[in-house]
Amino acid sequence: MKISSLGEFGLIEKIRKSALRRSSAVMVGIGDDAAALKVSASSLLLATTDMLIEGVHFNLAYTDLYSLGWKSAAVNLSDIAAMGGIPRFCLTSLGIPPAFSVEQISDFYRGFNAVLRAHRAVLVGGDTCSSRYGLTVSVTVLGEVEKTHVLTRSGAKPGDRVFVTGKLGDSAAGLEILKYGVKGRGASRTTVGKRLIEAHLRPAPRMAWGRIIALSRCAHAMIDISDGLSSDLGHICEQSRVGAVIESGKIPLSLSLRKAAAYLVNIPVYYALSGGEDYELLFTAPPEKVRKLRSLGIPLHEIGEITRNRAMIILDHAGKRTSFRATGYDHFAKEPGEAHS
Amino acid sequence: MKISSLGEFGLIEKIRKSALRRSSAVMVGIGDDAAALKVSASSLLLATTDMLIEGVHFNLAYTDLYSLGWKSAAVNLSDIAAMGGIPRFCLTSLGIPPAFSVEQISDFYRGFNAVLRAHRAVLVGGDTCSSRYGLTVSVTVLGEVEKTHVLTRSGAKPGDRVFVTGKLGDSAAGLEILKYGVKGRGASRTTVGKRLIEAHLRPAPRMAWGRIIALSRCAHAMIDISDGLSSDLGHICEQSRVGAVIESGKIPLSLSLRKAAAYLVNIPVYYALSGGEDYELLFTAPPEKVRKLRSLGIPLHEIGEITRNRAMIILDHAGKRTSFRATGYDHFAKEPGEAHS
Repeated sequence: MKISSLGEFGLIEKIRKSALRRSSAVMVGIGDDAAALKVSASSLLLATTDMLIEGVHFNLAYTDLYSLGWKSAAVNLSDIAAMGGIPRFCLTSLGIPPAFSVEQISDFYRGFNAVLRAHRAVLVGGDTCSSRYGLTVSVTVLGEVEKTHVLTRSGAKPGDRVFVTGKLGDSAAGLEILKYGVKGRGASRTTVGKRLIEAHLRPAPRMAWGRIIALSRCAHAMIDISDGLSSDLGHICEQSRVGAVIESGKIPLSLSLRKAAAYLVNIPVYYALSGGEDYELLFTAPPEKVRKLRSLGIPLHEIGEITRNRAMIILDHAGKRTSFRATGYDHFAKEPGEAHS
Repeated sequence: MKISSLGEFGLIEKIRKSALRRSSAVMVGIGDDAAALKVSASSLLLATTDMLIEGVHFNLAYTDLYSLGWKSAAVNLSDIAAMGGIPRFCLTSLGIPPAFSVEQISDFYRGFNAVLRAHRAVLVGGDTCSSRYGLTVSVTVLGEVEKTHVLTRSGAKPGDRVFVTGKLGDSAAGLEILKYGVKGRGASRTTVGKRLIEAHLRPAPRMAWGRIIALSRCAHAMIDISDGLSSDLGHICEQSRVGAVIESGKIPLSLSLRKAAAYLVNIPVYYALSGGEDYELLFTAPPEKVRKLRSLGIPLHEIGEITRNRAMIILDHAGKRTSFRATGYDHFAKEPGEAHS
């Protein structure tokens, strides 16, 4: 059977089922942002891993190695943020092609360590080996969170309001500018273009906000936006067995993305819904907690509501309801789009 | 600067130094079999990661996917064994080329889970993505060990006896048979050939023995033999700031390896010293503990002694002393040999 006929998430489900053995020490296993493991009486160990492959996740024609190191750390820390946790330790493996120089690898680690240092995490190990084709990066981050505060994808309840912590779509628009230079207008050299590219190359993991949301105990479910709003909301809906109605006019879009709209291929909301790699947090909370949430001093954009009806619906300015489904990146989709980033 | 001028271990040292931030929670950081992290009052969290790249670490022309899954789990568990620990949790990332089938990935996980199940470890997460060139596997294993029992590479003392837990060199000889078919004599189909190949494709991590050695509190330092006896003893010597004298006649060689000697390119002891991927445990213990060690009921082969003089010396049958240095696999060596396995 071709992997494309299962898709990425079908394959993950198959792997999950094949991991026969259950353990009472596993509070959250395969299928969330991070695993949550009982290793002490009060706190959970969080563990997450991501692989980044040259030509699939990044292209060194337009990604410098400092940014690649930065992003490799950021995307993994973001998974810890999405569980409400604190990052502690990190392991990296690099498969390095023969043509690479020591300076390039040093640049990678400068970017990587800059993010780790900002969030007080420590590099404790890894593996360094040669690769025949292209650079391969694998990062594992370990973190911790109180048993009482951990946030998963599966806790959303009908009636919950849906929030995101920041503007969406900039990263995907930045990638488009990097890849296609948008109609030769030199967009990558404009202030707007530079901002969008920066969002793509050096995302900021929302560690403090994730932690504040967890400590407030206001949220029911949380995820970080890596695959795109539609896909990641889809993960919450599926694992919580609920649906959602999103108001398209409430999806927060940056001024840069609106300004860039004139020369981008798609309309801004497309990048927000389907683009991915924003690394903002997406979470749900019951209406009675909204006032408390608003008092926390973190950016909050309310974009819709969780419903008992398991469809995902988008409501446009004119009040028209359209059902939508996950349209973010699937590594093994039948009609693969362009490389992820 | 070319990476080859630093070598693999020079590069690791550079990465270690660049990871500026120290943390009191890190008992053992970069440069041992696993990191040892303080997460609770009495026990340490062990974390280790390994990357396996097609064309570098394995060749699918002579490695079936069940064996690859098996080995990917085994080599990481072996690092936990080398610290005296118990494996608990595992994360895997796979970069999968488009041509792979679901059945192939299922075979990989059948092999992988067989090893996990045997050692009561649980797959708790990972990442699954597409790859352009070749299969890439990255595995992280988390384990635990008592603070009082952890064994590192740095505790060896002059006068310590040096032990290995089993026969060495079979894996490297098996690889040679797989790769070159040894002079067209169909060696891979003989009983001897099959045993050596099996040693290469499906190594057994010495979990129970590592644990027994740690609990006995007899050993000063321990490592698993992944790079080869000379390299791995070299790691102990360097990190313990000692040297060693090894008696070549005492290096344990299997009957299969001796029988195969007639058609192998090198003499048996070469495979034991330089081959690697045996995944036996190599440890040192003071003379007064030898009797207790022998009572533990585990295979023990005493092969030499730790010395204050920091050279590594091999003593042959005739009493001739030759200094030797680490000759195992270096991913970035100036004159790279064949692929690792």
